[in-house]
Amino acid sequence: MTTTYTISLLGFGGVNRALAELITQRNDEWQRDFGFRLVIVGVSDLALGSIIAPGGIDARVLTQTDFGRGGFAALSGGSADPRSLDVVRDAPADIVVEATYTDAITGEPALSHCRAALAAGRHVVTTNKGPVALAARALTAEAAREGLRFDYEGSVMSGTPVLRLARQALAGSGITGFKGILNGTSNFILGRMEAGLDFAAALSEAQAAGYAEADPTADVEGHDVRLKVVILANELLGADLAPSQVDCSGITALTPADIATVVSNGQRWKLIGSASRQTDGRVEARVSAECLPVTHPLTGVSGAVNAVTFTTQMLGDVTITGPGAGRIETAYALLSDIIALHRDRTAQMHQEAAE
Amino acid sequence: MTTTYTISLLGFGGVNRALAELITQRNDEWQRDFGFRLVIVGVSDLALGSIIAPGGIDARVLTQTDFGRGGFAALSGGSADPRSLDVVRDAPADIVVEATYTDAITGEPALSHCRAALAAGRHVVTTNKGPVALAARALTAEAAREGLRFDYEGSVMSGTPVLRLARQALAGSGITGFKGILNGTSNFILGRMEAGLDFAAALSEAQAAGYAEADPTADVEGHDVRLKVVILANELLGADLAPSQVDCSGITALTPADIATVVSNGQRWKLIGSASRQTDGRVEARVSAECLPVTHPLTGVSGAVNAVTFTTQMLGDVTITGPGAGRIETAYALLSDIIALHRDRTAQMHQEAAE
Repeated sequence: MTTTYTISLLGFGGVNRALAELITQRNDEWQRDFGFRLVIVGVSDLALGSIIAPGGIDARVLTQTDFGRGGFAALSGGSADPRSLDVVRDAPADIVVEATYTDAITGEPALSHCRAALAAGRHVVTTNKGPVALAARALTAEAAREGLRFDYEGSVMSGTPVLRLARQALAGSGITGFKGILNGTSNFILGRMEAGLDFAAALSEAQAAGYAEADPTADVEGHDVRLKVVILANELLGADLAPSQVDCSGITALTPADIATVVSNGQRWKLIGSASRQTDGRVEARVSAECLPVTHPLTGVSGAVNAVTFTTQMLGDVTITGPGAGRIETAYALLSDIIALHRDRTAQMHQEAAE
Repeated sequence: MTTTYTISLLGFGGVNRALAELITQRNDEWQRDFGFRLVIVGVSDLALGSIIAPGGIDARVLTQTDFGRGGFAALSGGSADPRSLDVVRDAPADIVVEATYTDAITGEPALSHCRAALAAGRHVVTTNKGPVALAARALTAEAAREGLRFDYEGSVMSGTPVLRLARQALAGSGITGFKGILNGTSNFILGRMEAGLDFAAALSEAQAAGYAEADPTADVEGHDVRLKVVILANELLGADLAPSQVDCSGITALTPADIATVVSNGQRWKLIGSASRQTDGRVEARVSAECLPVTHPLTGVSGAVNAVTFTTQMLGDVTITGPGAGRIETAYALLSDIIALHRDRTAQMHQEAAE
């Protein structure tokens, strides 16, 4: 039996474009291995416009055409306007895939996209840190009330399955805290500073290599990591933190001398996002540069790679290391959410039939 | 709703004793978090004897009494004889927990325990590499025919969830191979040799620290790793390998000079178990000491810690690092199998009711 999921893509930048490419390449494999196929019925993008196509859009056309500004207008069901809320409401999608830009203060427009999708009876999967850091609990509750899913594996460490590892494979292990290298740009810069560059030169290299944005503030001041710490602390430690409640500093104050001093001892400076449950039950979270001893499992994590070490009652430290960014890597996170949704939905359908 | 699972413990050494301790400490927590409790109704141990107690055995008595040889005879339903197959058949357990010693050649007596348990309609969870490396596919098929589970998270890396990570959280990522540090003893010895000791001195230290057995052959010649490579290759790459088909060498031929030479370049010798799917579809697997470059994610894994790096089509390399041994750590693997069984069984019960 094959299930077809119709999906709408909000944002057609690198991530959702990569998901569309995967659909062209792997629908048959997913049908064989998992029993589902994906069909795109809606797309919205600030630059390209929007498409509402209940009969399905050929993913090959989407990924292989060089659309200019407003270029979706040329397609059947297309418009030059990015009518994202119309796409959410009117394209008949089972699942809305939110991958627009992250606004760390308001979470908008992604937050409204997620709410509108759930209100319209559609599951939501997202890679967007904004709505997850600001409102994961409310959105999850909203989804549960409607018998829907709100999933966001890609909001932390792209497709490296940090959330699903903690929720499923470490169930019952007693997670009491975590420490993570959650920003590849800053980790790359620290590595280059260890090689002797000063901060400005290392940043230029990161920008040339495509790791750092023209405005690197969110990466090097820790703001990006802070959103991920909030997501992990709220999800894994049952906290209810807002980003503003997490003390946050970055790596800009570190000098080449600070770094050289510790390297000779085998230690390394890392930008660490961490949280832990205190004896009184409170969860304390922070983002700051920390000097890790040579024996810490995160000390060897180099370049743009990310990693999280969970502290558990049963296993001590367990660390997962993998990519923290990348088009295909982040698109895989969306796929992994859809695979999980499919597995749970199949079980749930049987359950409802039994009641 | 609370489900009570009755369990029989085969082998009452460190691991099953730790599971019994967890039962005394955490049954209420499991009831609250997952909806089940565990009750021990059978125990068998070569030294201590056996117990068959349909009404349940107080786990506190089991863990707090200092039983001598044949000491189970003093308990109600007890005997000085280790009648393991009687316990499997006659103790009314939902789940048989196999944690006797590993025989790498025949898998016995564990293999017969597993078969008898499945034939008696009981689920099996095990930490025993022998039956898993030799017969996981047959036992899994046998279990499936009877609507039962055969699970073995603890057969590789104790409770570090390497199997469940690969099966669930990395589903659809396209795993094409893996490399692992799968034996803590040899990794500890290599670390001490990096600090300047020769093999014999490093081995003595490992034995003094409790890492190495009196007969360290299985650890230092790679035989222990070979079983784990077979388990992972068969499970994750769909291979059908027997241990004898895997080329295997250990760390005994490495000299302090071999090790010192590479350390100065930032490289490290590691005992690596690996497998990968070749372009012709065959799976090649091996165990050997490898000189890893400073950039490899396994290079920084020190001491008795274990780790596996999966190579995937979607994410590149993803590495999980954690304990590879330990009483509580391995007992947690059994618990994690029972949690997974409970989650799936709950879904399956609904499914059967629907049909």
